[in-house]
Amino acid sequence: MTDCQGDGEGTMSPMELFEKLNAQGEKVRSLKSAKAEKAEIDAAVQLLLKLKVDYKQMTGQDYKAGCPPSENLIVSNNGPAADDCDGEDLVDPWNVSASSTKGVDYDKLIVRFGSSKIDKELLERIEKVSGQRAHHFLRRGIFFSHRDMHQILDAYEKHKSFYLYTGRGPSSEAMHVGHLIPFIFTKWLQDVFDIPLVIQMTDDEKYLWKDLTLEECHRFTVENAKDIIACGFDVNKTFIFSDLDYMGASPQFYRNVVKVQKHVTFNQVKGIFGFTDSDCIGKISFPAIQAAPSFSSSFPQIFGGKKDVPCLIPCAIDQDPYFRMTRDVAPRIGLLKPALLHSTFFPALQGAQTKMSASDPNSSIFLTDTPKQIKNKVNKHAFSGGKDTVEEHRKYGGNTEVDVSFLYLTFFLEDDEKLEKIKEDYTSGALLTGELKKILIETLQPMIAQHQERRKQVTDEMVQQFMTPRPLNFKF
Amino acid sequence: MTDCQGDGEGTMSPMELFEKLNAQGEKVRSLKSAKAEKAEIDAAVQLLLKLKVDYKQMTGQDYKAGCPPSENLIVSNNGPAADDCDGEDLVDPWNVSASSTKGVDYDKLIVRFGSSKIDKELLERIEKVSGQRAHHFLRRGIFFSHRDMHQILDAYEKHKSFYLYTGRGPSSEAMHVGHLIPFIFTKWLQDVFDIPLVIQMTDDEKYLWKDLTLEECHRFTVENAKDIIACGFDVNKTFIFSDLDYMGASPQFYRNVVKVQKHVTFNQVKGIFGFTDSDCIGKISFPAIQAAPSFSSSFPQIFGGKKDVPCLIPCAIDQDPYFRMTRDVAPRIGLLKPALLHSTFFPALQGAQTKMSASDPNSSIFLTDTPKQIKNKVNKHAFSGGKDTVEEHRKYGGNTEVDVSFLYLTFFLEDDEKLEKIKEDYTSGALLTGELKKILIETLQPMIAQHQERRKQVTDEMVQQFMTPRPLNFKF
Repeated sequence: MTDCQGDGEGTMSPMELFEKLNAQGEKVRSLKSAKAEKAEIDAAVQLLLKLKVDYKQMTGQDYKAGCPPSENLIVSNNGPAADDCDGEDLVDPWNVSASSTKGVDYDKLIVRFGSSKIDKELLERIEKVSGQRAHHFLRRGIFFSHRDMHQILDAYEKHKSFYLYTGRGPSSEAMHVGHLIPFIFTKWLQDVFDIPLVIQMTDDEKYLWKDLTLEECHRFTVENAKDIIACGFDVNKTFIFSDLDYMGASPQFYRNVVKVQKHVTFNQVKGIFGFTDSDCIGKISFPAIQAAPSFSSSFPQIFGGKKDVPCLIPCAIDQDPYFRMTRDVAPRIGLLKPALLHSTFFPALQGAQTKMSASDPNSSIFLTDTPKQIKNKVNKHAFSGGKDTVEEHRKYGGNTEVDVSFLYLTFFLEDDEKLEKIKEDYTSGALLTGELKKILIETLQPMIAQHQERRKQVTDEMVQQFMTPRPLNFKF
Repeated sequence: MTDCQGDGEGTMSPMELFEKLNAQGEKVRSLKSAKAEKAEIDAAVQLLLKLKVDYKQMTGQDYKAGCPPSENLIVSNNGPAADDCDGEDLVDPWNVSASSTKGVDYDKLIVRFGSSKIDKELLERIEKVSGQRAHHFLRRGIFFSHRDMHQILDAYEKHKSFYLYTGRGPSSEAMHVGHLIPFIFTKWLQDVFDIPLVIQMTDDEKYLWKDLTLEECHRFTVENAKDIIACGFDVNKTFIFSDLDYMGASPQFYRNVVKVQKHVTFNQVKGIFGFTDSDCIGKISFPAIQAAPSFSSSFPQIFGGKKDVPCLIPCAIDQDPYFRMTRDVAPRIGLLKPALLHSTFFPALQGAQTKMSASDPNSSIFLTDTPKQIKNKVNKHAFSGGKDTVEEHRKYGGNTEVDVSFLYLTFFLEDDEKLEKIKEDYTSGALLTGELKKILIETLQPMIAQHQERRKQVTDEMVQQFMTPRPLNFKF
């Protein structure tokens, strides 16, 4: 990382120093277990301690094995830098599990990942620069964390445009309402800032990770693209691409992939993603493919070959490891670090600590559900924060922090006053669980029906249009 | 590997079993060094021994750490299978070093790599099927080893065509005469069998391995392509491609790359190529890119989407590890194993045990050398097998086995009788070193001059034509 201020380790990046520390730690352990000479062990320990001091100096963080350096080098505005990573929540691109019924502890995650909280000041700034009221996902902390959003706004204020990049891993035909969150928010960002958007469909990733054929993954890409288009994106401002197609259609994209691949070692992806020696070489090199769309030079047809158009990535926080890696590499290959806006996870019907699964139709509301299915699923499966009996509920009230119906409403009920009233009434016991569920059902039913209606209008030709590499309606 | 007959380890391939053995060996060592319980060590050793028996049963070879299974499963016709790999010659795609002044021991290499010798029977068969006298590279054992060449000829006799695939790593503008060997031979194969040829320029590999920019590597591709075209290839039958371009121009090529990447683990490339955790992820995944042109489905524009056109790869034996991997993967992704013809290495002027280097202009004859440079280099630097004084030489004769001038003549002097006469006279002492060098100089000077003349005729437009993905003059 070039923005590092420590000089104890010359030109090493924090990640490289972190790896050196890991290796040195292992060396000390193996010397001890092999009962090596005391002098040899002492020398190894001395070097380990020296490296720890260098690391602290460089990153402002204490070294801890298994806890890679966060990006907030030196002490940030968000309080002291991370000095532990022993939270019990597990968050990476393939696993999210929370220990509490309230779900993942997002404040801890911000500290651990070294990102920044979206605070009141940033919210106000977004409203000022965009001239629009902040989206309720921002107001309600659903998008809660960011990297370098101020820099994006600084540039935008100086009439320097940027572009949006988000994506989806098409692992099945079925998308659920949670999958729409990044797209609904991205659509809002595109509308208020009027900027290009690229959407990556990582069908190659799904082929590598799942027991699926290339043809299946590509078909899921097309089917999922229809749901994404149904969110209302403008074909003149949006490019959706399948990795399997675009990799084979853009020499510039592949060049950026190779550049990233040259500057990331197996040690690094092992540290970041937990890959092992038994993983296939496709998985090991894939992170470079998710990194490449962060650089405007990957899309010469849109940006006319300009390589300095800043990129903003709205995504769920579990995708952050890819972009921490990208931001570490970017300055070393002469490209801009992408900025990020991170969302919380969309809770499963069974509760915020459980995982939604495309293979379990009852774990969420799917975009193909009928009004009846929606009603049944919410009534039967939505975890309730209410009390066991009506009497108790009236007396003690319900808990909106764990009630999935209420949580879903925070995502989909736009009216702040109405939501606040529901919260008050449920907490006081005035509103019963059945009544709360009814409000959610009546919110979801028309929303899903309208989505299905819009999706029906999406023809194969439209998908083809969105997915054809072409200039968009922007000048760069 | 699907053609394995052992059943001791269920559906494991020899390579997978080899890795399991490696892991188990490491486990035993670590248990011992950690002074674990005797019972635990014994159990681990028992499993290790059982795996070794399974391995022997499956491959016909004794397990030896660091010595991956050769492909000649069970005992082949070439004598007993390898049971050691302690020859001192080191041969892999990036390193070739021989212990003897005669150079690499190729017979040992055949046993170690598990390929087959090109014997008299195969030579005669090639002549019979092609209706042509075998090329002097074949007659003189310069192409000395093969895999599945009989199958290629079987199919060809039944009027089933095949295609040729060879390549070059463009690491500099300068090519030397040794670099022409695979192309001269491939041209002959193409002429006698009248089949399509694809030539891969691995500019991405050179970018990943060397301190070069993408632009430099791509420029070297174009410059080297001119030298290749100057060998006389027919644009209607030959497709030359830069990885950096073709990867971004062919979704089918990328699909085959991803297929290979899904079916090869880091453990495997570690075993085959010696990669380490500090290697970049680009190197680790690159072998799949060199594998993909072995499959006709990577070139739908040439083979009309057919995926069962057999592939024959003429290459130097150091490239074999890539294709051992490819042949291991092919049946697992439903594709044909490529066949191979392996050449010996072209000796450096300083002797067969030294390495030619593009950065040392005196280590070989370059395609840009003037007649005077050729004369000086041969006279000054060509290692001589002659005696120290004329008197001694006349009395004892010279040694053609180590004399580089003579070795070069075996490559470039087509006339068998003349070559035999030179050998006799040099061995007897009738021919002096200076006279032998003169013959070589007079062979090389017009050959290089003609090459330079032909290269001058190669325009950028012609290169462009050769490198444009397009149908060739063949029906599939």
